[in-house]
Amino acid sequence: MREVPVVQKVLKANDLLAEKNREEFARLGLFVVNLMGTPGAGKTALLEKTFDMLDLNAVPSAVIEGDIATTNDATRLAQKGVQVVQINTNKFGNACHLDAGMVQSAMEDLDLNQAKLLFIENVGNLVCPAGFDLGETARAVVLSVTEGEDKPLKYPVIFRSADAVVITKSDLLPHLNVSEQTIKENIGSIQPKCKIFTVSAQTGSGMQQWLHWLVRHEG
Amino acid sequence: MREVPVVQKVLKANDLLAEKNREEFARLGLFVVNLMGTPGAGKTALLEKTFDMLDLNAVPSAVIEGDIATTNDATRLAQKGVQVVQINTNKFGNACHLDAGMVQSAMEDLDLNQAKLLFIENVGNLVCPAGFDLGETARAVVLSVTEGEDKPLKYPVIFRSADAVVITKSDLLPHLNVSEQTIKENIGSIQPKCKIFTVSAQTGSGMQQWLHWLVRHEG
Repeated sequence: MREVPVVQKVLKANDLLAEKNREEFARLGLFVVNLMGTPGAGKTALLEKTFDMLDLNAVPSAVIEGDIATTNDATRLAQKGVQVVQINTNKFGNACHLDAGMVQSAMEDLDLNQAKLLFIENVGNLVCPAGFDLGETARAVVLSVTEGEDKPLKYPVIFRSADAVVITKSDLLPHLNVSEQTIKENIGSIQPKCKIFTVSAQTGSGMQQWLHWLVRHEG
Repeated sequence: MREVPVVQKVLKANDLLAEKNREEFARLGLFVVNLMGTPGAGKTALLEKTFDMLDLNAVPSAVIEGDIATTNDATRLAQKGVQVVQINTNKFGNACHLDAGMVQSAMEDLDLNQAKLLFIENVGNLVCPAGFDLGETARAVVLSVTEGEDKPLKYPVIFRSADAVVITKSDLLPHLNVSEQTIKENIGSIQPKCKIFTVSAQTGSGMQQWLHWLVRHEG
C-alpha cells in the first residue's frame, strides 16, 4: 500500500550491501545459512544440536545471532565452542528482521578465516526476514510441528525463498493432531525444489541428514 | 535505522485512522480485541473454542481475520456461527501486520449493530503488529507453551503493549521441558499489569477465566 515505494528503496540499498557480503563469503569459502522461522520454532535448539553432533575441528563454525532483545541465544551457543556475535535489533528501531548492513557490521567481530560454516540466526518472524537478502549461500526455514500443517500456505513468501525447510520437534508428533506428510505436501506445493528435513533436537532423530546437507555444501 | 523516519510517518497516518475506528467501536458499544501472536500460537483454535463455549445469543460476536494468504482461518471460524470477514495482506504488499485502514475497510462488510464482541485476529507475527494501533479496546497476545519460556523477554515490545496474555496448548506441558510459572514470571517482568490466562483449546482447561474476562468487558 502506501508503504511499498519506500520499502522498495530500502530493499535496493540492502541488495547492494548483500552483494558485498556475498563476495566476502565467497572469498572466505564460507557456506552461509540464513536461518529463519517463527519465535519458538526451535532455531537455537537446532543449532545447539548441530554443534553437538558436528566435528567442529573439521568444520569450524560461527554464528551471527539476531534478536530484538537479550543475549540468551548467543550465550547458549557460545557454550558449544563456536564463535558467536549478537545483533540486538532494539538498537535499530526494534527491527523485525536482520538486514545486510547489520550482518556486515557483525562480521567485523568474527574471525572467519578458518571458518567453513556460518549460520545467521534471524529474528523470529515468518514474514519480514524473507524480503531481506543478507548475502547468504542458502536459506533454511525452521518450522516446528506444533505450528500446525498449514503454515507454508499461509506464509508462502518465506517458504518460496527457502533452499531447505527443517521440520523441528518431531518428538512431539505423537501428542499432536498433525500429519508430517501433510506438512511436507504443503511445503512442496509452495516450493517443490527445497530440501526437507524432519528432526528432533531432543532425540537427535533426523539430524544426520541435515548435517550431511550442511557439510556437503560447505566450502 | 534508515527506515525509522518513514515508519514514523506511516504510523502517524495509521493513528488517525485508528482513532476513527475507536470512535466507531465506542458508538457501537463493541469490545474489540486485537489478537496477536506468532504463527501457530493457536489464535484461531482459541477463537474456535471461545465461540463453542460462549453464549452467542447473549454475546453476538464477529471476527476480522488477518492472513497474508488463504481463507483457511475465516472458513474455520464461519462454521462457528459468527460473522467473519477476511483480510488477505498479499493484496497489500504481503504486509506483516494489519493496519487501521484495513480494519476500517473490513468493517464495511460486517453488520456490527447487534454485535457485542469483535475479535481482530492479526497476521501471525510477534513483532510488527505491536506498532499498529487498530483502534481496539484491548490487546491480547497469544503465546503457546511450545514456544519456550523466554519469548516475553526476547519480544518485549508486543508484551509491553498487552492487556492480556493467553498461554495456550497447556495440555502439552507434560511433554515439554517448560515451566508455566517461569513463562508467567517473564510476562510479569515485562508487563506486570496484564491479565494472564493459561488455556487448552483441546481440553477447555482455563477457558472459563478467559470467557469471564471477555464478557465482563464487553459493551
